[in-house]
Amino acid sequence: MTQRPTIGVAVVGTGRMGADHVRRLDRVTSGARVAAVVDVDADRAKRIADGVEGCAAFTDAAQAMAADGVDAVLIASPGPAHEAALLAAFEHDLPVLCEKPLTPDAASALRVMEAEQRLGHRRVQVGFMRRYDAEYQRLKALLDSGDLGRPLMLHNQHRNVSTPPGFTNEMIVNDSAVHEMDVARWLLDQEITAVTVLRPRASSSAPDGLDDPQFLVFETDGGVLVDVEVNLNCGFGYQVRAEAVCERGTARIGEGVDLVTHTAGRWGGTIDQDFVTRFEDAYDRQVQAWIDATARGETLGPSVWDGYAAAAICEAAVAAQQEARRVPVDLVDRPPLYR
Amino acid sequence: MTQRPTIGVAVVGTGRMGADHVRRLDRVTSGARVAAVVDVDADRAKRIADGVEGCAAFTDAAQAMAADGVDAVLIASPGPAHEAALLAAFEHDLPVLCEKPLTPDAASALRVMEAEQRLGHRRVQVGFMRRYDAEYQRLKALLDSGDLGRPLMLHNQHRNVSTPPGFTNEMIVNDSAVHEMDVARWLLDQEITAVTVLRPRASSSAPDGLDDPQFLVFETDGGVLVDVEVNLNCGFGYQVRAEAVCERGTARIGEGVDLVTHTAGRWGGTIDQDFVTRFEDAYDRQVQAWIDATARGETLGPSVWDGYAAAAICEAAVAAQQEARRVPVDLVDRPPLYR
Amino acid sequence: MTQRPTIGVAVVGTGRMGADHVRRLDRVTSGARVAAVVDVDADRAKRIADGVEGCAAFTDAAQAMAADGVDAVLIASPGPAHEAALLAAFEHDLPVLCEKPLTPDAASALRVMEAEQRLGHRRVQVGFMRRYDAEYQRLKALLDSGDLGRPLMLHNQHRNVSTPPGFTNEMIVNDSAVHEMDVARWLLDQEITAVTVLRPRASSSAPDGLDDPQFLVFETDGGVLVDVEVNLNCGFGYQVRAEAVCERGTARIGEGVDLVTHTAGRWGGTIDQDFVTRFEDAYDRQVQAWIDATARGETLGPSVWDGYAAAAICEAAVAAQQEARRVPVDLVDRPPLYR
Amino acid sequence: MTQRPTIGVAVVGTGRMGADHVRRLDRVTSGARVAAVVDVDADRAKRIADGVEGCAAFTDAAQAMAADGVDAVLIASPGPAHEAALLAAFEHDLPVLCEKPLTPDAASALRVMEAEQRLGHRRVQVGFMRRYDAEYQRLKALLDSGDLGRPLMLHNQHRNVSTPPGFTNEMIVNDSAVHEMDVARWLLDQEITAVTVLRPRASSSAPDGLDDPQFLVFETDGGVLVDVEVNLNCGFGYQVRAEAVCERGTARIGEGVDLVTHTAGRWGGTIDQDFVTRFEDAYDRQVQAWIDATARGETLGPSVWDGYAAAAICEAAVAAQQEARRVPVDLVDRPPLYR
Repeated sequence: MTQRPTIGVAVVGTGRMGADHVRRLDRVTSGARVAAVVDVDADRAKRIADGVEGCAAFTDAAQAMAADGVDAVLIASPGPAHEAALLAAFEHDLPVLCEKPLTPDAASALRVMEAEQRLGHRRVQVGFMRRYDAEYQRLKALLDSGDLGRPLMLHNQHRNVSTPPGFTNEMIVNDSAVHEMDVARWLLDQEITAVTVLRPRASSSAPDGLDDPQFLVFETDGGVLVDVEVNLNCGFGYQVRAEAVCERGTARIGEGVDLVTHTAGRWGGTIDQDFVTRFEDAYDRQVQAWIDATARGETLGPSVWDGYAAAAICEAAVAAQQEARRVPVDLVDRPPLYR
Repeated sequence: MTQRPTIGVAVVGTGRMGADHVRRLDRVTSGARVAAVVDVDADRAKRIADGVEGCAAFTDAAQAMAADGVDAVLIASPGPAHEAALLAAFEHDLPVLCEKPLTPDAASALRVMEAEQRLGHRRVQVGFMRRYDAEYQRLKALLDSGDLGRPLMLHNQHRNVSTPPGFTNEMIVNDSAVHEMDVARWLLDQEITAVTVLRPRASSSAPDGLDDPQFLVFETDGGVLVDVEVNLNCGFGYQVRAEAVCERGTARIGEGVDLVTHTAGRWGGTIDQDFVTRFEDAYDRQVQAWIDATARGETLGPSVWDGYAAAAICEAAVAAQQEARRVPVDLVDRPPLYR
Repeated sequence: MTQRPTIGVAVVGTGRMGADHVRRLDRVTSGARVAAVVDVDADRAKRIADGVEGCAAFTDAAQAMAADGVDAVLIASPGPAHEAALLAAFEHDLPVLCEKPLTPDAASALRVMEAEQRLGHRRVQVGFMRRYDAEYQRLKALLDSGDLGRPLMLHNQHRNVSTPPGFTNEMIVNDSAVHEMDVARWLLDQEITAVTVLRPRASSSAPDGLDDPQFLVFETDGGVLVDVEVNLNCGFGYQVRAEAVCERGTARIGEGVDLVTHTAGRWGGTIDQDFVTRFEDAYDRQVQAWIDATARGETLGPSVWDGYAAAAICEAAVAAQQEARRVPVDLVDRPPLYR
Repeated sequence: MTQRPTIGVAVVGTGRMGADHVRRLDRVTSGARVAAVVDVDADRAKRIADGVEGCAAFTDAAQAMAADGVDAVLIASPGPAHEAALLAAFEHDLPVLCEKPLTPDAASALRVMEAEQRLGHRRVQVGFMRRYDAEYQRLKALLDSGDLGRPLMLHNQHRNVSTPPGFTNEMIVNDSAVHEMDVARWLLDQEITAVTVLRPRASSSAPDGLDDPQFLVFETDGGVLVDVEVNLNCGFGYQVRAEAVCERGTARIGEGVDLVTHTAGRWGGTIDQDFVTRFEDAYDRQVQAWIDATARGETLGPSVWDGYAAAAICEAAVAAQQEARRVPVDLVDRPPLYR
């Protein structure tokens, strides 16, 4: 066991996710402290900062990054604000944990990727926190072991109790399916090359104008078919399941059993009602991993390349959704920094 | 309890399935006896007949149907011989249990359907025995109850350990996926209107020339999406699973747990290795249901319409498979006899 | 396949179990017919007989056994009537399937056993139908295989929704736990040598005067400990589970999964509400096995020795229950006929 | 969110458990730092201290407790050293997390309890970390809710792959079953009043002289029966399961499913091989809970009363084991401090 410094983090954005990350860094993550919080709402920033020892409040991200005691940046502001915050962090050469999406579209993600390459080393870890979920990690380890042979198909289900007001068909792709894109790419270590979006008749539980559920099919450059049920008004719970079909067997996660009851005519367990319950540990592990890597001077985890790929696939998927056809995914060549 | 007669059955075809049906009618099914067996191989017919009390051997199906004591016909000959046998049974107005496929293509199925309509009443039950499987029956009952709301999607997996020599891409549709077509139509009480067939890179366990696994998507006239993984060289077992995704919940079958062991580092159960083990009870129940209905002078169960629909969907699916595109399914109007 | 005769059965007792066996022999069991029914209530006997082709009604069991066409006897009358019916069957040397209990106590069971030995061959199969349950058979096969090593403990749960009026503490042993005694002896191929009965405070769901649940511990001559939760007012279902703990692993049955649903916050399946649903197939298989053996001139399955052993263990268990102490089980030496 | 101080902890004992707690406090637990380590082996203490920023090494526990920056004590030394360390901590009025056992016997536990009462407030949290396991917590919450009615029985299994050399029959009680005692008392909120220990023939996997497995029965003052299979050479895994049988249903934990595979003829998951994997999160949560309470000036969690009760039940269980009889458990009256 070698000694390690405590990392001072500036948290950019103090909405739901940002405030939760402040709590996590202050109360859960070992080796970190919240040195600064940033929000365009100065009052909110101050209120949050007051609850944390030695934490300063800012309304400008670049200013916070220049402050004393800031060693790293966690970006949890709305997506359109990410690019500017990332470029500011690059100027100070600070390690960043950037909530997904990296940026709202492929073009801006590409600009970020170019900027990081000019920096000459990786500084950004993208917040695809499923990679830190214990079940996904066991599935990944099993696929990597080769024990089941080569993967052939992935069947995924992504279910929410209900959508918040204002949820659109594009958000089905950009906010929900995006996790499935990243996790498929990561599990398979393959790029997605085409997307098709199919729709059954909408559920009567879906709000007017939202075609929910939808069924996405991804094709990969390794010849794997990935299908995804996105079902955001399923009513019964938050459920993320995956089954990998390989040449010599299958493996599946997301059945999530702990307490099993037997009551009046029925046996079974409960279903989580939101992603916080289901993936709380993954969030903790993600931030811990970032702090640990930062303390060692490294940047690991989902990269800007992964953020860019997600953005590019989302663009193809929205087109596939709107035009009811298969849409190829075009990616730039993978830069050496991300190989 | 009212008394009932014993039904004398002529079994046409004494190959693997036919011989098994003879055993079933003789040893398992109550209220039936095997009155005649028919095979173009006279020796085989005689050998089988000798093992059953009061059973005569024939090489001609029509002749057997005219014999004394024959009250019903079970057709288990190869598919191309079905049409002639069915028409002969219609001439004697005998109830028929016809192994699937009804006939090898939609055109011949249509001819049989027309002949049965001329007869004026249903006489044919098609051997889609999954409808008699206890798990599918519970799933059907749940869907029919409306407790989960309207079905939106069906996810199905159809897995075999390995394919026999000579298995072709067309057989993936006509021999394997055909069960999924019928069971989807039956579970949903909807017709299939279009078929798409997708293929991942073939498994290295698949024989040369066979694109296995394949992934089929059916669309129905009720707006339900049905996806089917057909995976015939999965290596690990015979596995038929279905998950119905409805507006207020999901239901799934095929997890099949009875004996669970905990041994060196691993808990779990066994997987059936063939359809005989998995669906033995369904075969028994199917033949029993047919004999019971026949004794009451009724014809129930999967009809010629169901056999015809399966043939038409298979034709569309083979085209979808060969041309790598979505192919609509064209059905004639449903005749009054089958409403 | 060799031809076989149809066995004419006299069913003695036409109460709930008897009437169900008549239906089974007439409608389910292949190779059998109900030749006679016997009941002290002549009207009931006649009413049942009228529903079955070629079936005669009797009020006297011995008379029925002497009738034409009676090849075998199924005894489903109340326990106290069993001894006389068994001895009558021995006089005609008829194969008997005798519902459990063989007789109400060890002394009378011993008399039946002596009578069968004088006959010189086995004629009685006792109705311990769990031996014909598919799950118990798989557990037995696994234990016999030795794959898990020697058994060390059996944990059993025997749960009913509620007890009928008039159910007594003695019936907890004689009607419920008796199945666990037989199945433990059969699974282990060992005799039970001592019994202890423990009681938690009674459930508020238990009727006044009934100490339910109870917890029984059996010791065997092979050093295995068998514990049994008998819980007859559990409220939620009919549930029979067993876990065998062996030297190299455990195996368990009774988890019974087929249809699994995911609905509002809960996943799971249903629990059977009575033994008919749970063990229907076992009853069918039991009677079929008896008819098949009878047709071959054999007597197999649970023997008079097994019926006697159950009676002797029940007597010890009732004493253990009443005196709140461990009570040894005394068995006569096993006669050669039953080795 | 209010600010909170960082708690400086002296860790007494740097063996396997102690060293692991140092790592946990340094790397996992938020709000804590390791201020001192104590070991009779001065080299080992120094080696551990060198790896942690600002950590001093001691060979004497009392001296460490007097050192600057020590706000709390974690005792992980061998059981016989606990009493002295606890009394020293009381002198400095320091909060203590004391690994189980509190002390090796009931008499010394009673002395510690008396000393804490003289102190006038609780300062000791005993290391019964199962109370911090997520599954046990859900089971406890369900029992407390009363949804299933009053508990009637608890069935528990405690299985290890194999015992280390030198493991004795007494250790089966004092090292293994002790967890089941505490968790039963905690789940039920009842005291154990008598203990019986039964033994099947020993497993051939058990080392000579060790009667493994054993079967313990606890009776509680609320009339609940608790049975425990302790099976320490089961060979297949580390497995802790519990089923609570209540008046209106049952609940069980320890089935632990995440990744489920389907491979050659078998479906299922893996079994943990040791308690570190199974209860790692519980250890983390336990220490975190202790640090959080300490920062608030409180002492919560398992108390000296719980440590004493465990010691007294262990003494009764060892007597029950040695004398093969039911042994009542005698507890002093519960002091007001622990009500």
